Amino acid sequence: MPFTVAVAGASGYAGGELLRLLSAHPEFEVTTVTAFTNAGQPLIAAQPHLRSLAHLTLAETTPENLAGHDVVFLALPHGKSGEITAQLPPETLVVDCGADHRLTDEADWAAFYGGEFYGAWTYGMPELIHADKTKHRVEIEGTKRIAVPGCNVTAMTLGLAPAVASGLVEVDDIVAVLSVGPSGAGKSLKPHLLASELMGSASAYGVGGSHRHVPETAQNLRVAGGTGVRLSFTPVLVPMARGILATTTARLAPGVTEADLRSAYDLAYGDETFVHVLPAGEYPRVADTIGANTCLIGLAVDGAAGRLVAISALDNLVKGTAGAAVQSANIALGLAEGLGLTVNGVAP
Amino acid sequence: MPFTVAVAGASGYAGGELLRLLSAHPEFEVTTVTAFTNAGQPLIAAQPHLRSLAHLTLAETTPENLAGHDVVFLALPHGKSGEITAQLPPETLVVDCGADHRLTDEADWAAFYGGEFYGAWTYGMPELIHADKTKHRVEIEGTKRIAVPGCNVTAMTLGLAPAVASGLVEVDDIVAVLSVGPSGAGKSLKPHLLASELMGSASAYGVGGSHRHVPETAQNLRVAGGTGVRLSFTPVLVPMARGILATTTARLAPGVTEADLRSAYDLAYGDETFVHVLPAGEYPRVADTIGANTCLIGLAVDGAAGRLVAISALDNLVKGTAGAAVQSANIALGLAEGLGLTVNGVAP
Amino acid sequence: MPFTVAVAGASGYAGGELLRLLSAHPEFEVTTVTAFTNAGQPLIAAQPHLRSLAHLTLAETTPENLAGHDVVFLALPHGKSGEITAQLPPETLVVDCGADHRLTDEADWAAFYGGEFYGAWTYGMPELIHADKTKHRVEIEGTKRIAVPGCNVTAMTLGLAPAVASGLVEVDDIVAVLSVGPSGAGKSLKPHLLASELMGSASAYGVGGSHRHVPETAQNLRVAGGTGVRLSFTPVLVPMARGILATTTARLAPGVTEADLRSAYDLAYGDETFVHVLPAGEYPRVADTIGANTCLIGLAVDGAAGRLVAISALDNLVKGTAGAAVQSANIALGLAEGLGLTVNGVAP
Amino acid sequence: MPFTVAVAGASGYAGGELLRLLSAHPEFEVTTVTAFTNAGQPLIAAQPHLRSLAHLTLAETTPENLAGHDVVFLALPHGKSGEITAQLPPETLVVDCGADHRLTDEADWAAFYGGEFYGAWTYGMPELIHADKTKHRVEIEGTKRIAVPGCNVTAMTLGLAPAVASGLVEVDDIVAVLSVGPSGAGKSLKPHLLASELMGSASAYGVGGSHRHVPETAQNLRVAGGTGVRLSFTPVLVPMARGILATTTARLAPGVTEADLRSAYDLAYGDETFVHVLPAGEYPRVADTIGANTCLIGLAVDGAAGRLVAISALDNLVKGTAGAAVQSANIALGLAEGLGLTVNGVAP
Repeated sequence: MPFTVAVAGASGYAGGELLRLLSAHPEFEVTTVTAFTNAGQPLIAAQPHLRSLAHLTLAETTPENLAGHDVVFLALPHGKSGEITAQLPPETLVVDCGADHRLTDEADWAAFYGGEFYGAWTYGMPELIHADKTKHRVEIEGTKRIAVPGCNVTAMTLGLAPAVASGLVEVDDIVAVLSVGPSGAGKSLKPHLLASELMGSASAYGVGGSHRHVPETAQNLRVAGGTGVRLSFTPVLVPMARGILATTTARLAPGVTEADLRSAYDLAYGDETFVHVLPAGEYPRVADTIGANTCLIGLAVDGAAGRLVAISALDNLVKGTAGAAVQSANIALGLAEGLGLTVNGVAP
Repeated sequence: MPFTVAVAGASGYAGGELLRLLSAHPEFEVTTVTAFTNAGQPLIAAQPHLRSLAHLTLAETTPENLAGHDVVFLALPHGKSGEITAQLPPETLVVDCGADHRLTDEADWAAFYGGEFYGAWTYGMPELIHADKTKHRVEIEGTKRIAVPGCNVTAMTLGLAPAVASGLVEVDDIVAVLSVGPSGAGKSLKPHLLASELMGSASAYGVGGSHRHVPETAQNLRVAGGTGVRLSFTPVLVPMARGILATTTARLAPGVTEADLRSAYDLAYGDETFVHVLPAGEYPRVADTIGANTCLIGLAVDGAAGRLVAISALDNLVKGTAGAAVQSANIALGLAEGLGLTVNGVAP
Repeated sequence: MPFTVAVAGASGYAGGELLRLLSAHPEFEVTTVTAFTNAGQPLIAAQPHLRSLAHLTLAETTPENLAGHDVVFLALPHGKSGEITAQLPPETLVVDCGADHRLTDEADWAAFYGGEFYGAWTYGMPELIHADKTKHRVEIEGTKRIAVPGCNVTAMTLGLAPAVASGLVEVDDIVAVLSVGPSGAGKSLKPHLLASELMGSASAYGVGGSHRHVPETAQNLRVAGGTGVRLSFTPVLVPMARGILATTTARLAPGVTEADLRSAYDLAYGDETFVHVLPAGEYPRVADTIGANTCLIGLAVDGAAGRLVAISALDNLVKGTAGAAVQSANIALGLAEGLGLTVNGVAP
Repeated sequence: MPFTVAVAGASGYAGGELLRLLSAHPEFEVTTVTAFTNAGQPLIAAQPHLRSLAHLTLAETTPENLAGHDVVFLALPHGKSGEITAQLPPETLVVDCGADHRLTDEADWAAFYGGEFYGAWTYGMPELIHADKTKHRVEIEGTKRIAVPGCNVTAMTLGLAPAVASGLVEVDDIVAVLSVGPSGAGKSLKPHLLASELMGSASAYGVGGSHRHVPETAQNLRVAGGTGVRLSFTPVLVPMARGILATTTARLAPGVTEADLRSAYDLAYGDETFVHVLPAGEYPRVADTIGANTCLIGLAVDGAAGRLVAISALDNLVKGTAGAAVQSANIALGLAEGLGLTVNGVAP
């Protein structure tokens, strides 16, 4: 008998992607979908691509409506999860796609988000390699509370963590620039997200260290063994609906060779289903990850500049959000980790 | 009486943009257009957007066909200009949009291009600030040979040179990641340039220090006063036909404030027509520069990361190529520098 | 001394395009720009691509602020022009880009727009061929009130009017389907105009005869000599910021040959600067018209289907709105018709 | 034990999509993939998004390499299938995504394709309603040879067939205009398919009755009961990698009401998994069908124009090609019809 599932925030992009994945998952049955302003509407009005879920109606997002399910997925605006999760029973598996339970350091929370601090949950990045070379997967097994990582964070972390864990790069001057699609900003009615404005254009935002994904990425790289992490992170909005292409660079530690790096990444990801390192000289394309729970990584050693350049590609709504949520939920529940997920992108 | 003009390579994207600008220029009259494989065709067959030039036919690209004009613009593949320019009379103003005459150091040429080295010409970047705070414009006045800068080079150089010239950043660990449109790669029949492949996607190329714009950018920053320049440069192909958004970062020198930086950029660009620095907290969009000879720059000081982040936007075919060519030709001929050029982009 | 100009609705897309064209016009000087909600802001905040107009501030859109100029261009939402124009002096040239003064038949107005009917002005489509083979241009000379045609209307009308005026097609079963970019819908914060929704997608709207451009197109074809016009018009929103590609088909009258058609279109457009008919077998691309005041037309005779297929391409913001406004204003004022306008598109 | 499968033409877009679907199909195991020029390469080099098939190598497309499988899918250029299929054993299920076996009338083949005529196979459109109101599905059961319909054909046919089968429209003056993505043209190195050319643009091709999908669509509408079918069909290339939005219109028969139409479409598609008719006033978006085997249809009655307007959306590579192939193969083999297919699109 499948696990019963509720999805909160089901009218947005992350909620829609959760539902798309869950609808193909053999062990989950979505019985409740909730929203704020769209409550009362048929789900299909907000998510016309989810034909198989045409029977569902959006209920209001309340603790009462979310109670009584085996699993609750939250895809709510930052700051909204905390108050709701506090009212859910401890035996329910709660998977939060928002930021409310990601940061371990209250000072980081205060500096980048503000408002009440609800505390960190188990971090849903199974492939994150720790300083001791174990993977974060083990932390997720059996947990009842999962914080799904930020999409940009996932791209940067997966791109750099193996080099950090093996001490092959210095972490005090990391520079990352990400090409990101607008769906990461949600279904928000803001002028700069209009098609007329974005098509044929590109622009940076959250420049100069202000983006909320900075402290979370630094936190991960510390878990991977880095100390004194400093990160210059610039996201660039480009005209593709989904996807992230991250260029993450760090100074090479003295004497490091490409073979050292290949070996470290092979140790980290050689057995992974959803993270693939490409052969030397090949770099990933966002298109190859669309709809898939895959992160593709290309590596270059720039000897003249003294830097490792890690290029990572993923679908911000899948491996960057909903796919990571399902993968982590599978682990937490003892299911096969890849259940309901695919590694093959929808391309071209 | 206007100057007579020939354009070589008139069937490609750079050639087409030269012709678009020249057709609106009051002092230039295009009388000859040449091509290789398209020779014999009407220009309009290759450039159906250039309705006002429907009377022109593509001649073959030979020194003979290019001789006898006041000005010759070359938009040829790298390695093709040198042999032709050697046969043009010294009194003709020759403006080369290719790379053949950009690099001053033969070793750079050998390492990144190869083949015969034809030597550097006057570099066509009027707004480049020198170590002594003069601008490169003075070098262009009266010259007969102009090498038009590379498009990515222009974006990175204009973004960083004022800080370098004023000693406000260190140049030994510059990191730049550029979002670039496919027109910079020319009208080439390569699979990764197909619309099906690129739309909805992004991918990096020339990763790890191999891109030919690395030595040219370093050369410019040395002109601006930098010593020991090291640059990690990654171009990312994104789905916009034109345009470059460059994120160029460098470590701040000790004690530098945002006010110091603003003051240096104001000194460099305060009087410039085509380079504009945006107010604090604002960052440029590629769309605002399309069709215009404008480079827009936004600046952020990331104190935590210890880096200056300079975001620059331009149209790779205008300020990045054809507009720079016309602007420099105007200067060389003693015309008003902005003749035939606009600062207003075609947006949205 | 140039004519002084005010532009109302200067913060929107049509207003921005008017200003882009006017800024390059040698006989117009924009001294006043107005807006509703953006009043008080610098123009450049709403239109960051208009660098040459950075000195202008948005005033409130009131008759008082618009008074005292030689020319007033209105780019206001439908229904807003009428009440303002009633208060402008009769000697001012007023050019309305909205719909308020386009329709001659009050019943059409009531059925498709509603609200007060302010009456039709001189219709700003110089190249529209009348039943007697004169062009509409003569109506515009010396007028003080110009209604700029709708963008889709212009594409359909220019595509079909010559065949209608020469009696070569039947007008009682015209079918037109237009690919249109979202800028035609203005800078509106509506979900279906978000980049995430539109990129990689296409969708029809105003299906089944409800679109407001139906009666206006029929009105034009009646001016061209058609009687009993019936039009099935479907606009399809596609992911390009600007542009219209119209496929307009009509049943061929008995015995009509392609030569008859070519001859009729040559009569209509052979001397026109801004409307070009392509040779047999060639069809226009939207890209070739971007930024230009050009309408390109390709023609095919489908003998098996018994229909003329006219494909017309134009930039909805230029030939479809702001360019038509400037062109008509030039005519009304006795200036050279093409002043400030270009025929060459910005491509690729 | 699953059926063994070979895919010919595995390096192209249709072949890639077949493999993406087959890799998720529980009853098919792809053991052989073949290509022409890419033979010898790993599949992943040509299809970097198909991570789960990284173990496969492209063999040459020969009858020998394709023999010995339970099912062979062909995704070859038109004219290539015939000679190969003649050499495959009769007990193998052969599913041809090309055009070689679609047309029943040799004269149509000669007029639109030419070359040797190999004869028509069972037509793979299960939902096609016949004049007697049965569906085409029954023809497919147990067959060993399936011709997969053309992508545009599927969109037009599904959009109009129910109205034809019920005699609600006249078929002698059908007009269809389709917005199509470039992946329908395959991975071809042609200038007009370059990203620089297509992004921000739209253009028509195959105008005037010359497109090969005209006779196939007419053939289908005859199967649905139409006599004297005449079709004006214009495909318009728009900047979305995948997808078709078809606007198909036909004159309404006298006295037909919207209720009559709704009833006819309900009869045709009310029980279908993959064809959905939207409620009155709603029209489909291409994005909602991407990656899914779904065709969405919106209907409008334009009383003034006297036409039915049917808007249909589908993914040209799925319901338009590979999905139809898998669906038909499922039927032919007696499997559940929807096995390995999804109804939920990847949106946004």
